[in-house]
Amino acid sequence: MKQGKFITLEGCEGAGKSLQLKLLKEYFDKNSIDYIYTREPGGAEISEKIRAVILDANNKDMHPVTEALLFAAARVQHIESVILPALKQGKIVLCDRYIDSSFAYQAYAGGLGYDYIAKINDRAITTCMPDITLFLNISPADAFKRKGGADANDRIEQNGLVFHEKVYAGYLEMLKKSPERIVAIDCMGERKQTHLNILSALKERGIIG
Amino acid sequence: MKQGKFITLEGCEGAGKSLQLKLLKEYFDKNSIDYIYTREPGGAEISEKIRAVILDANNKDMHPVTEALLFAAARVQHIESVILPALKQGKIVLCDRYIDSSFAYQAYAGGLGYDYIAKINDRAITTCMPDITLFLNISPADAFKRKGGADANDRIEQNGLVFHEKVYAGYLEMLKKSPERIVAIDCMGERKQTHLNILSALKERGIIG
Repeated sequence: MKQGKFITLEGCEGAGKSLQLKLLKEYFDKNSIDYIYTREPGGAEISEKIRAVILDANNKDMHPVTEALLFAAARVQHIESVILPALKQGKIVLCDRYIDSSFAYQAYAGGLGYDYIAKINDRAITTCMPDITLFLNISPADAFKRKGGADANDRIEQNGLVFHEKVYAGYLEMLKKSPERIVAIDCMGERKQTHLNILSALKERGIIG
Repeated sequence: MKQGKFITLEGCEGAGKSLQLKLLKEYFDKNSIDYIYTREPGGAEISEKIRAVILDANNKDMHPVTEALLFAAARVQHIESVILPALKQGKIVLCDRYIDSSFAYQAYAGGLGYDYIAKINDRAITTCMPDITLFLNISPADAFKRKGGADANDRIEQNGLVFHEKVYAGYLEMLKKSPERIVAIDCMGERKQTHLNILSALKERGIIG
């Protein structure tokens, strides 16, 4: 069924995901690689409507299980109406965040557990797992330092850091679980070097020529 | 934990649910019974936003699994922010449709299967099942006849009937599965008689005095 290749990019806040996506898209364009770029939550018309509910700042009383089910609902629609059709046409699908974000943020950091997130995302797991997941491997503390350091007096920023360290630990758990799929990308150097590391990973795994 | 009583009302289109809910609310009011009335999908602020996505006529390409996950997401929020708090205060919660609608419409008529719907609704099943479910037991064909009959030339209405007969069969399956919880209410007589049948069921099961 699946003929194209499905690439997902994952990482904590501040890891540099946006810039690396930009560089990768430029590389694909320059090398005439047939690809689509998409993102989660969202990526399809109905999924973007669900994204709006998830991200609506007025919905601060949203229960964690409600949120996890909304992410799963948006994902199914994205898979069926965008990702699988593009893969069937032989395209590369480049996706900003995917199921590993649900594992890192909701299963591990949010405490819902791996099995629960796997259960409600069974459609993704059985029909649409990435061929490769590029994990920008930098801890939130290091990413913070790179940005110039957090203000020690800013309680909210400190709390944020505790949560994001849990997310990072969640990603490391996923890396242990699926080493054949997830590649840890060293991104402690210059952004350009990180880009080259990503290209190497894609070539080594035969995703691009 | 749960101190109040949780009543749900179920049935196919045309079974007369709205009128029976109205009569039951009037009875509770007259007898100073402490209750809240709510509905699914919706019933809580965030759940109503999810309802809007489910019912948006522009979303006709929604995948059945997306829809089922949205119903489950709306339900969790409804349970946590409305139903359980009211039950803890000792109130009767009267709800127009609940998990049996997901079983009848999505699991049986929609073909997703009982196990899948149970899996994504595990929170409802483990923490918030109704004390009694009143099932207005009239087939769509009989409800149609009561309304004056369907136009045999109207293909859409005929298709609709096929689907709604599947929903009805789904309800009968649920009745077989959970006879201790679901009560089939005879509603072939006058609406006033159906109301009396509902009151008898609630009294027999000790839901009201």
